Amino acid sequence: MPRYEHGGDIYGNTGVLLDFSVNINPLGMPSAVKNALISRTNEFTNYPDPECRKLRCAIATKLDLPVDWITCGNGAADLIYRLCYAVKPKNAMVCAPTFSEYEKALEQTGSNIIYHLLKEENGFDITEDLLDDITCDLDMLFLCHPNNPTGRLINDDLMERIMIRANQTGTIVVVDECFLDFTNGVSTKRFLSKMHGLCVLNAFTKIYAIAGLRLGYMLSSDTALLCKINSAAQCWSVSVPAQIAGTAALSCEGWVEKTLSLVTEERRYLTKHLKNSGIKVYSGDANYLLIRSQHSLYEMLLEKGILIRRCGNFKGLDDTYFRLGVKTRNENDVLIKTLWDFLK
Amino acid sequence: MPRYEHGGDIYGNTGVLLDFSVNINPLGMPSAVKNALISRTNEFTNYPDPECRKLRCAIATKLDLPVDWITCGNGAADLIYRLCYAVKPKNAMVCAPTFSEYEKALEQTGSNIIYHLLKEENGFDITEDLLDDITCDLDMLFLCHPNNPTGRLINDDLMERIMIRANQTGTIVVVDECFLDFTNGVSTKRFLSKMHGLCVLNAFTKIYAIAGLRLGYMLSSDTALLCKINSAAQCWSVSVPAQIAGTAALSCEGWVEKTLSLVTEERRYLTKHLKNSGIKVYSGDANYLLIRSQHSLYEMLLEKGILIRRCGNFKGLDDTYFRLGVKTRNENDVLIKTLWDFLK
Repeated sequence: MPRYEHGGDIYGNTGVLLDFSVNINPLGMPSAVKNALISRTNEFTNYPDPECRKLRCAIATKLDLPVDWITCGNGAADLIYRLCYAVKPKNAMVCAPTFSEYEKALEQTGSNIIYHLLKEENGFDITEDLLDDITCDLDMLFLCHPNNPTGRLINDDLMERIMIRANQTGTIVVVDECFLDFTNGVSTKRFLSKMHGLCVLNAFTKIYAIAGLRLGYMLSSDTALLCKINSAAQCWSVSVPAQIAGTAALSCEGWVEKTLSLVTEERRYLTKHLKNSGIKVYSGDANYLLIRSQHSLYEMLLEKGILIRRCGNFKGLDDTYFRLGVKTRNENDVLIKTLWDFLK
Repeated sequence: MPRYEHGGDIYGNTGVLLDFSVNINPLGMPSAVKNALISRTNEFTNYPDPECRKLRCAIATKLDLPVDWITCGNGAADLIYRLCYAVKPKNAMVCAPTFSEYEKALEQTGSNIIYHLLKEENGFDITEDLLDDITCDLDMLFLCHPNNPTGRLINDDLMERIMIRANQTGTIVVVDECFLDFTNGVSTKRFLSKMHGLCVLNAFTKIYAIAGLRLGYMLSSDTALLCKINSAAQCWSVSVPAQIAGTAALSCEGWVEKTLSLVTEERRYLTKHLKNSGIKVYSGDANYLLIRSQHSLYEMLLEKGILIRRCGNFKGLDDTYFRLGVKTRNENDVLIKTLWDFLK
């Protein structure tokens, strides 16, 4: 097994009471999703619908997009690999720091990976410097919106200029919006009809707290590309419980709004108290915060049963960076108090 | 979406009352599995254990093999694709007819696919003719044991000679044993320690009737190869419900024996009555039967709400071949009566 690089490793760490290393909705799974799963267990015997018909129709209705522009996967990560296998980009660009699965998928297809380094002095923001890097030689560009682990959104104007530029150069732009619902950011799906080379990635796993069920989707107006992505792996990749949960989740009115309100409030609360403890907190818009400290926060918190995400394995960061998921007030208070006791 | 080629398409066909097109355990899902899933729904919020630690330990104990020799996948089909991506065989051989996912996975890696045609006059058995085809140029050989859709097992002696030959030529042999538990056949796992290039594939989906949950595993003593297979796609491919169900399934004492006894009896019963209706039935050892008829059995049965598997898209077969899953006595009786009414 290659070394595990992500958050949420509650299996490899014993005695974890609070997991701040993952970025999952602090509200948990909607009860409508849970009830649908429990009442429809008998259907788990059947092969899944390879075309995810009901689920894709529900997504199409929700997003007001053609159903043909949607393909589902066994989590967004499944679609990242499928996309890379389908396109086999010669040259591909990823930002640094960012979610590491883009790079790992590109390594599988032997792509030449070019890193666009985000600067600490810019708060790790993507700036218009990126535009110069989008050339005719660049086959694929991965953008994480908001970025992981920084929580930074890409400015709307800049995003439009990126799209225009990539259209000119024929570069496929993959915009990972898996955490966008936790922010006030605008989806790039608005560019889909004009921008044939745009692939928008999203997931149910985070916002509906069903990471264990694995469910993501990709949007693109390039239906031939979606067809290639479907053929790049097995046809039954999205399980029956994932399809049931996804369809039930989309019927939860107000869920995203309720989540956004809680996360915004708690992110502010956490930020204020972390700063009071002398920790550097980077301003972010998502349900997680990038922080920096010279103290051994990871080891100290783990000793108290609190797991956080070390960021030393993000290219462009080091062991002084950590990522914290934004959780409920009670949980955040435990974290704050534990840090305070340690750092005071 | 590419055209769907397999059985079980209850989503694309309305009004299906009985699905004989899939080969799932007629006993259904063990209640221990169902109860585990219902009582542990809360865990679906967590990311899955990427290493499937508990599940792999349970499999290792059950099979008396080192845990390092086991990797799990999102169904066996996931592992077929991962393996092809990991190895990228230049020349690969598949039998015809056989399960089509081997060929489809090999197409993704641009492999040269060589077909070993099984002959109707041999009852579609693999014979020692295969040995001559295992040459130093052959990088990978897929064997389905028992074969799908014929239900034929490979003779023990011949299997040993295949292993010896493949060891000499350095050919990776993939033995798909997903339906072996429904037969009296012997697993090729007995060759694992001596045969470094052997990959044994198995699944929980069929024998425990959890096709919708997606769970398969691969056994190999080549741990470097397993590591490559793990890296060939995302690390979270096996969902939490799949890991819970798999672990619970392995604790069901006597399940395989009970299934085998039912399937053996019902296969005999179905065979006898199908023959009485004038249908040609190929002798098979699994929980499905290959049959042949000049009548439009598919259309006629579908009109009565019974779905069977047309075999026209199996290389080496044509539209006069069909595959029937072996089900419970009541269900089999409905099929027999419907056929009898039509063919009498």
